[in-house]
Amino acid sequence: MERIAGVARLRERVGQEKGRGAVVGVVPTMGAYHRGHLSLMRRARRECGLVVVTLFVNPTQFGAGEDFERYPRDLEADAGMAEREGVDILFHPAAEAVYPPGFSTWVAVEQGVEQGLEGASRPGHFRGVATVVAKLFQMVQPDRAYFGEKDYQQLQVIRRMAADLDMPVQVVPCPIIREPDGLAMSSRNRYLNPAEREAARSLFRCLQEAQRLVSAGERAAAAVIRAARAVLEAEPLVRPDYLEIVDPETLVPVELLDRPAQIAVAARIGSTRLIDNTRLLPD
Amino acid sequence: MERIAGVARLRERVGQEKGRGAVVGVVPTMGAYHRGHLSLMRRARRECGLVVVTLFVNPTQFGAGEDFERYPRDLEADAGMAEREGVDILFHPAAEAVYPPGFSTWVAVEQGVEQGLEGASRPGHFRGVATVVAKLFQMVQPDRAYFGEKDYQQLQVIRRMAADLDMPVQVVPCPIIREPDGLAMSSRNRYLNPAEREAARSLFRCLQEAQRLVSAGERAAAAVIRAARAVLEAEPLVRPDYLEIVDPETLVPVELLDRPAQIAVAARIGSTRLIDNTRLLPD
Repeated sequence: MERIAGVARLRERVGQEKGRGAVVGVVPTMGAYHRGHLSLMRRARRECGLVVVTLFVNPTQFGAGEDFERYPRDLEADAGMAEREGVDILFHPAAEAVYPPGFSTWVAVEQGVEQGLEGASRPGHFRGVATVVAKLFQMVQPDRAYFGEKDYQQLQVIRRMAADLDMPVQVVPCPIIREPDGLAMSSRNRYLNPAEREAARSLFRCLQEAQRLVSAGERAAAAVIRAARAVLEAEPLVRPDYLEIVDPETLVPVELLDRPAQIAVAARIGSTRLIDNTRLLPD
Repeated sequence: MERIAGVARLRERVGQEKGRGAVVGVVPTMGAYHRGHLSLMRRARRECGLVVVTLFVNPTQFGAGEDFERYPRDLEADAGMAEREGVDILFHPAAEAVYPPGFSTWVAVEQGVEQGLEGASRPGHFRGVATVVAKLFQMVQPDRAYFGEKDYQQLQVIRRMAADLDMPVQVVPCPIIREPDGLAMSSRNRYLNPAEREAARSLFRCLQEAQRLVSAGERAAAAVIRAARAVLEAEPLVRPDYLEIVDPETLVPVELLDRPAQIAVAARIGSTRLIDNTRLLPD
C-alpha cells in the first residue's frame, strides 16, 4: 500500500492504472476505522482493480461546538488496517491542501434530500460533505465510490450530487455493520463510557421495535414512532434528537406504511451524538 | 463534425480519443456564434487532439426579466460555423437532460470573485454559470477549456471553481475580439438598432479614455473612472450600470493604479445590456 499526501502523485498513480484499464474504486473516510469501514474496503477490493481509500477529517462538515477537535485520529493504526484489507493507495491530504487560502467554492444540495433529519440538526453539514466529496471525486476520478448506509442521508445527498453534476461515478451503498448487540459501528462509539455504551443499545432496539410493530400490521407511522420513541425514552442516559420515518429516496416523512420506508434516529448520550437507521418493510 | 445530444454517446467518443492519448479541449458556448467564439474554437483546434464545442442556452444563469427567451438560437448556422473551424463534436444537450426533474445541486463561488460587477447586477447569475460549467466539465472531461475574456468576471469565477474543486482541467483565457470600431463582439450586439449600435461604441471608447489617462500618469482610480464615465454619459442612448476598476485576480476595487488593474463596464442601450473590460497598464 502506498501512502500519498499530494494530488499530483495521486493522479499519476490513478492515471497509470486507468491506462491499463483498471476500474478505480474509492472509499472516502475520516479515519478511526472499525469493521464498517473495513467492509467498504473489502467490497471495493472485490470489485475494483485499484482501491483508493481517502482519509481526511473534513473540517467543513463539522458545525460550531461539534467534535471536530476531538474526532479520533490515528493514521498509523488506520494505515495498518487498510493495508491488511489490500488497499492500494491511502490518500491523506493536508487540510491546507484541501482548503487553501482563498478557497470559496461550495457544492450544495438544496431543497431536497438534505432537508430534515441531519440536515435540520446540523446546519451546513451536508454542504461540507457534498463539497469535500465532490473534491475527492475530482482528485481520485473514481469509477465506483463506496459509502455506508449508516449515514443514510449522507448517502442520498451524495447520490443526488453525483447524478445532478453528471459525475461519471457509481455510488455504491453498503450495509450497516453492527456490534453483536446491534449497536451500529461508529467511530464515535469510542467516546462512550461503559454506562453510556449500555444505554446506546436502545438506538437499535427502538428500530427493532418499529419493525416489530410494522410486521404485526401497524401501518400508521405516528403509532410506530410513538412506540419506538418509548424505547429510547426508557433510557435515562439517552436524549433523543429526532426519530422519523421517511421515504427511502426523497427522505420526505411518510404517514402510511404501505411501502418500504426508512426509519432514522439520532440521539445524544452524554456528550456523544449517535445516529442509526433501518429499512421498515411491511412484509 | 459529429453532432451529439446525449451524454452517453459523448462519453463514448471522448473516451475513445482519450484512450488514443488525445488532449481534449472544450469550448462551452450558448450559440449565436461571432468571431469571438470562432477564435476560441480555432485556438482549441490548434492545441487539442479532440475539440468539443458545447452549445446550451443555460436557463439557470438568466435572471427574471433577462433575455433568456429572446436569446438568439440558430443551431444550423452555428453548426456550420463550428464545422468550418474543424470542430470534432458539437454537443447540444436538451434542457430536460441538463436539468431533469428533481435536480437540486448547485455549485457556487461565494464571498470572492463573484461579488460586485455582474455578480451584484445579476443575482444568481454566477451560481447558474458555475453549476452548468461544472456539469459540462463532468460530461466532457476536458483537459483544456477555452473562455473569452469579454466575460472577465465569469472567467475568474470558473478559474476559482475549477481550482477549488480540484478539477483536472486547464482554464484557458482568450482575448476579446472586437469590431473594427472597437465594440466587443457579443451575441447580444444583434439586438441593437443602427442608432444603438452607434452609441454602443462608447463602451470601448470609455475604456480607451481610461487607458489614455493612466498612460498620461493619472494614478487615482476615482479620477480615471470619472473621466471614463463622462464618455459614457455623453451618449444619451446609454444608461451606465457600473464602471469599476478592480484587481485583475480578486476583482476587489482598487484606488491606486500603481499596478495593472482591470476596468469593467456594463451599460444598457435600449433594451440591450452590454459589458466590456480591458487591462489598464501603468506603463
